[in-house]
Amino acid sequence: MNDIRITVFCEHHQDRYEPVKSVYPDGIHAAIAAAFAEEPGFQITIATQDMPSHGLTNEVLECTDVLIWWSHIDNHLLDDTVANEVCRRVVRDGMGFIALHSASFSKPWQRMLGIEYEAGEWGRFRTMPKGEKERLWVVAPGHPICEGLGDFIEIPQDEMYGEPMLIPEPDKLLFIAWWEGGEVCRSGTLFERGRGKIFGFTPGHEEFPIYHQSEIRRVLRNAVRFLAPAGGAKVHSGEGHLSGEAREDLSHRM
Amino acid sequence: MNDIRITVFCEHHQDRYEPVKSVYPDGIHAAIAAAFAEEPGFQITIATQDMPSHGLTNEVLECTDVLIWWSHIDNHLLDDTVANEVCRRVVRDGMGFIALHSASFSKPWQRMLGIEYEAGEWGRFRTMPKGEKERLWVVAPGHPICEGLGDFIEIPQDEMYGEPMLIPEPDKLLFIAWWEGGEVCRSGTLFERGRGKIFGFTPGHEEFPIYHQSEIRRVLRNAVRFLAPAGGAKVHSGEGHLSGEAREDLSHRM
Amino acid sequence: MNDIRITVFCEHHQDRYEPVKSVYPDGIHAAIAAAFAEEPGFQITIATQDMPSHGLTNEVLECTDVLIWWSHIDNHLLDDTVANEVCRRVVRDGMGFIALHSASFSKPWQRMLGIEYEAGEWGRFRTMPKGEKERLWVVAPGHPICEGLGDFIEIPQDEMYGEPMLIPEPDKLLFIAWWEGGEVCRSGTLFERGRGKIFGFTPGHEEFPIYHQSEIRRVLRNAVRFLAPAGGAKVHSGEGHLSGEAREDLSHRM
Amino acid sequence: MNDIRITVFCEHHQDRYEPVKSVYPDGIHAAIAAAFAEEPGFQITIATQDMPSHGLTNEVLECTDVLIWWSHIDNHLLDDTVANEVCRRVVRDGMGFIALHSASFSKPWQRMLGIEYEAGEWGRFRTMPKGEKERLWVVAPGHPICEGLGDFIEIPQDEMYGEPMLIPEPDKLLFIAWWEGGEVCRSGTLFERGRGKIFGFTPGHEEFPIYHQSEIRRVLRNAVRFLAPAGGAKVHSGEGHLSGEAREDLSHRM
Repeated sequence: MNDIRITVFCEHHQDRYEPVKSVYPDGIHAAIAAAFAEEPGFQITIATQDMPSHGLTNEVLECTDVLIWWSHIDNHLLDDTVANEVCRRVVRDGMGFIALHSASFSKPWQRMLGIEYEAGEWGRFRTMPKGEKERLWVVAPGHPICEGLGDFIEIPQDEMYGEPMLIPEPDKLLFIAWWEGGEVCRSGTLFERGRGKIFGFTPGHEEFPIYHQSEIRRVLRNAVRFLAPAGGAKVHSGEGHLSGEAREDLSHRM
Repeated sequence: MNDIRITVFCEHHQDRYEPVKSVYPDGIHAAIAAAFAEEPGFQITIATQDMPSHGLTNEVLECTDVLIWWSHIDNHLLDDTVANEVCRRVVRDGMGFIALHSASFSKPWQRMLGIEYEAGEWGRFRTMPKGEKERLWVVAPGHPICEGLGDFIEIPQDEMYGEPMLIPEPDKLLFIAWWEGGEVCRSGTLFERGRGKIFGFTPGHEEFPIYHQSEIRRVLRNAVRFLAPAGGAKVHSGEGHLSGEAREDLSHRM
Repeated sequence: MNDIRITVFCEHHQDRYEPVKSVYPDGIHAAIAAAFAEEPGFQITIATQDMPSHGLTNEVLECTDVLIWWSHIDNHLLDDTVANEVCRRVVRDGMGFIALHSASFSKPWQRMLGIEYEAGEWGRFRTMPKGEKERLWVVAPGHPICEGLGDFIEIPQDEMYGEPMLIPEPDKLLFIAWWEGGEVCRSGTLFERGRGKIFGFTPGHEEFPIYHQSEIRRVLRNAVRFLAPAGGAKVHSGEGHLSGEAREDLSHRM
Repeated sequence: MNDIRITVFCEHHQDRYEPVKSVYPDGIHAAIAAAFAEEPGFQITIATQDMPSHGLTNEVLECTDVLIWWSHIDNHLLDDTVANEVCRRVVRDGMGFIALHSASFSKPWQRMLGIEYEAGEWGRFRTMPKGEKERLWVVAPGHPICEGLGDFIEIPQDEMYGEPMLIPEPDKLLFIAWWEGGEVCRSGTLFERGRGKIFGFTPGHEEFPIYHQSEIRRVLRNAVRFLAPAGGAKVHSGEGHLSGEAREDLSHRM
């Protein structure tokens, strides 16, 4: 089996915000990439928002099986053309897409789910004080993304999210987060759009070492394996697509 | 608009278990029924498990738009014929079904969802110490069953439930429960089976006055209005059903 | 109960394309509006694409419970700002949205479903020769939108559509179209996005008198009643939303 | 990777019904098994309804990753204990289950989907004249079960099925059947129940050589690969499951 080709997209935080620098000295993307160095079968490309085309040129996307997206404060600065091309790759070509943490407010995630809002807008997806203890409960224990986990993953500190998140009903809910401070949120959600699979996974505030945690890294690896494109049918295109006998059938009738 | 005809089915606990007697001196069913006396538009019939046919004769079911089911320790004693007839009324005729609290382990709920297990079996639906504070977060704020609620319903004490519940993916998730002790559970879930709608609502341990709480009563009323049968198409039956022109079409072709 | 306020949006075809003129001399919107004049309880506003703001000003949208959208050849000419405002009204405020015929290629429908494609692109939603006989089979006979129908609706002639449509898995599939020429398509599909409900209903090619057909008109009325906003919970907004006791709880802990 | 262990369950028709004997001289199960002999990676066990325990002893089920079920006229004669054990293996242990043709009326399929009806009962799943041409359109072209297919599979003759099938909304719809005689049916449907995946695939009337057709065999192989159990989380059981720190947390609070 061929290696799965992963592109990790990340805002480039570590040089401009001190707390991130101490937790992720080489950037959040480096920690995410390190999760895949622990096991064979993966190839990693890094793309950061400050690169030309945000590092997401057609050449890069063409060779990407799964795109992992971490973003937070610069969501609104993403180029629309890049966002739309990412969506097309997912829907049309089956590229997997993993939205981490505040990628819930990113253009590709929101466009593919058909929602558009800012954090806190409309009372629909609230973000709250940072530093709360979080437990990610496994809701779908038989799912491959939960492979190797126990009852829950405990995260000592994260930024608290809350419901209602305003997402469409997920095709499959995998994790629910419990927060010490009294909130819950659907923190692991699966969607399909066109040929592509999308996984939203909310943990990962940049001031805490969440992507160094072994269970979180396991979820990322499981998810990439699950989201890699699976093939499918070779359907034909557009008007007048019917061929051979079927086409003849039709033309006789018209 | 006609009144909605509700039947409340209940195990008859109050005469044999002291804590229930003090909270619900007239039975849990009386408290549930009282929720509907607060507004016009409802007719109530009471059925308890100790009645002949558990109070769920064909005559009663025939006149029931929505069946509310509270059960706990006697789930296994329910007559199979009655359980199956309840399922048929839902699937075939569109009777609504509300499963309260440990009705998650009742025969009708499990048969319509295609699962069968005891509490604690398979690590799939755990029940836990009683008395924890619970918050029911509204996950689907636009849904009619959530009409008139705020962000969450707080219940001072309940029996704690936990994930994974092993239910099929709900058609719509309405509430997630947060528990003081560190658990979560999908506490308000909607399913459709055949012509009928099913609502699972987990709060309601018998030692606490949960059905006296005004927000809980509001959810019950909202749910009954939402689950009452809606009509639908008049489809025909079985083999050779095609009639008139359609049938002729077919016979010419055969 | 108040009247349901409907806005019918339509491309203005009848003055520029002869076949439409003969079938719908006053415009397709007039035929759609006429469906609602047959029963009490509806108020109609007309909006056509050639009006300023396409007739969909904030004042109009503010007073719209359900927006019915018929479009075909001018989908790409729709103003992006109007398209986005329509989406926001659905997702945030619960306005219902009905996409008729080639509104499958309209901006609001595609943005809310998270897909973007032209007819025939990617082999994903094919449109085909016009004039085929079509049968809309009722797949969900207990659904209110199917109220009063029989086994199927027969349409003597329509533009043929085919699978795969590339839509996300519908929350509920109501109708499947059978076509004389050998194709099928999911022709009645329900989705929820945020607080709003969306109904896609594919019949309605402009050269055939489909919106004069009584069963089609019945489906439109049923759908409007089903999609009218239902209320729901009064959730609060954004950061720091927790109030009263909950907020205190939290602040003590931080 | 280990071989996938398949058990093929079948009514034993070929010795008692002449038309079947000529199409499937060694039984339908032999033709289904032959589909898996065409590629490596599968182990086959045969179980027929006339064997003791219908060939589905605990020892056999224990070693089954995917159970393929063909049944038709003897559905009602299946032992209830065996049916229930099959369901438990799926829901609890993640065994895959493929329901072929009239297995839509079999006990395991109906129990796991929460429906119970006979063919033709309630106007909900109609079966009709035999011998019609059928086309299975691919609705979800990116799905692994559709791998290697084109736009549709054409079956020269089959027993016609029709909607409404009364199944719960599938987690994923893969195929829709078009019938020459004017009917449609959801002919490839995916469900998850507990840890297990279920695939309903309607073609396969016993008088026509459908399981000799290469695209049908491909679907069977694709489906078995997709349904083989995937692992998942190691969640703990029942009451008092919380251990270590979590348990301590809780006991301090009680």
